Amino acid sequence: MPFELYYWPGPPGRGEFVRLAFEAAGAEYLDIARLPKSDGYGMPALMRALEAKGDPLPPFAPPFIKDGDLTISQVANILQYLGPRLNLVPREERLRPVAHGLQLTLCDLVAEVHDTHHPIDWSRTYEAQKEPAKARAEAFRRDRIPKHLGYFERVAAANQSGWTVGASLTYVDLSIFQVLEGLAYAFPRAMDGAPGRCPSLYAIAARVREHPRIAAYLASPRRQAFNETGIFRRYPELDGSAGWDEAG
Amino acid sequence: MPFELYYWPGPPGRGEFVRLAFEAAGAEYLDIARLPKSDGYGMPALMRALEAKGDPLPPFAPPFIKDGDLTISQVANILQYLGPRLNLVPREERLRPVAHGLQLTLCDLVAEVHDTHHPIDWSRTYEAQKEPAKARAEAFRRDRIPKHLGYFERVAAANQSGWTVGASLTYVDLSIFQVLEGLAYAFPRAMDGAPGRCPSLYAIAARVREHPRIAAYLASPRRQAFNETGIFRRYPELDGSAGWDEAG
Repeated sequence: MPFELYYWPGPPGRGEFVRLAFEAAGAEYLDIARLPKSDGYGMPALMRALEAKGDPLPPFAPPFIKDGDLTISQVANILQYLGPRLNLVPREERLRPVAHGLQLTLCDLVAEVHDTHHPIDWSRTYEAQKEPAKARAEAFRRDRIPKHLGYFERVAAANQSGWTVGASLTYVDLSIFQVLEGLAYAFPRAMDGAPGRCPSLYAIAARVREHPRIAAYLASPRRQAFNETGIFRRYPELDGSAGWDEAG
Repeated sequence: MPFELYYWPGPPGRGEFVRLAFEAAGAEYLDIARLPKSDGYGMPALMRALEAKGDPLPPFAPPFIKDGDLTISQVANILQYLGPRLNLVPREERLRPVAHGLQLTLCDLVAEVHDTHHPIDWSRTYEAQKEPAKARAEAFRRDRIPKHLGYFERVAAANQSGWTVGASLTYVDLSIFQVLEGLAYAFPRAMDGAPGRCPSLYAIAARVREHPRIAAYLASPRRQAFNETGIFRRYPELDGSAGWDEAG
C-alpha cells in the first residue's frame, strides 16, 4: 500500500521535505491534494483528512502522512518515522536521535523563514505586515542565516563521509538541500556569500542534486517551483546583505 | 550515572519541560548551570558544553542533555529519548510517534509564545519591539490560543484514560501542565475562559499537579517561578481577550 502525503497544493512548502524522502527512496506515495478531485482526491480529500471526523488522534496541520490507519504529523516526526523504512537514517542507531535533533533545528529555521514575511499575523497577507516584515527579515539575515548555516557547516565539515551525519545519505541531507534551495530563492543577495562559507553544505547539496532518483524527480513535473504562497518567498524588499562577519 | 541537563539559569523556560520529566520519574539529574561554579558547574560549564570544542556533534542551543558521551538537543527530541527510559511514553509502541507529534505541536506553541514578546529581533529587548509585540500578541490571543488549546482538548477528550495519549502519564501530559501554567502566567485575561472550554486539559493538569513526585517538586526550591527573562512573560499590555468564539 502506498504512503499518503497530505499537504496544501500550490507551494512546495513543508511538504517538500517529505516528498524528497519518498523520491530519494523510490517509495510509492500519493500526494493526495495534487491528485484529481474526480478520483476522490484533491482539496476535498485533504480537508476531510484535516477535519478527521471521529478520529481520536487528528492532525493539527499539514503536512501529515497516513500509513495504514496511523496519522503522523510534523515534518521532523514524519521523516523520523519514514527514515528506517526508507533507509534514510544513519545505520548507527545511536546517531538517530542526533539526526532527528538536526532535523528539528532545520525545521526551526524553516519556521523563522516563514515569519520573515509573516512576523505579526499568520491569518493576514504579507502586504498587511510589510513594515515589520522588513525589520524581521533584516534581523534574520544579520543573525539567523549565519548562525544556522554556520552551525550546520560545522557539523557537516566534522563528518568525514561527505554527508551531514553518519556514513550515508539521510533525510537530513535532503532537508539541507531543500533549505539551501529555498534560501537561495528567497534571499539571493544574503546567500551570495554562503557557498564560500559553507563548502561542506554545498557539497552535500550537490551530491543530493546528482542522486539519480532525486535528479529524475527534479526534472519531473512532480517538482514544484517556489512561489509567493509558500514558506520561501522572493520579496526583493526583504533581501539584502547577511551578517556573515558579525556572527559567532 | 545521572543525566545532565544544560539550560540557561534564571527562567524555567524550555528546560522546565525536561525537568518535569526527570522529576516525575524520580530520575537523578544534574541541572548543570544551576549548580555551584566552585564545583565545576554553573554558567562556565554550560558555555563550555555549548561551545563543544572538538565535538563533531555539538548542540545548537540549550536545552540539551548528555547521557554518557551522547548529546541530545531539542526539547521534543530529549523527551522522546528519555521517554522509554523514564516510563513516560505510551506503552503501545504505535502511539509513540503520535505522542511525539503532539509534543512537537506543543513546542510550536511555546515558540509562538516567545514571539509574542520578540516578534522582530531575538537579539534585542522586548522594549525595543513593544509595538509589533502588541500586534503579534493580539493575533496570538485571537487565533492561536483557541486553535492550539481547542486541538489538544479534542485529543484529550477523545482519550478515555484521563491522560492525553495512551493509558498512562506521559511527557505530553507534563508539557500540557507546564504550557497551561505558563499561559495563565503570561495571559491571565486571555486564559480566563480556558478552563470552561478545555475541561479535559485542566483535568490532566490537575492530575499532574497532584502526582506525588511532581507535587513534591513544585513545593521544592528546584521549581523556579516564571519571570520576564523567560518564554512566558507577564506584560499586561500584551494580554487581553482571546478569540474563543471565532476560532474553528
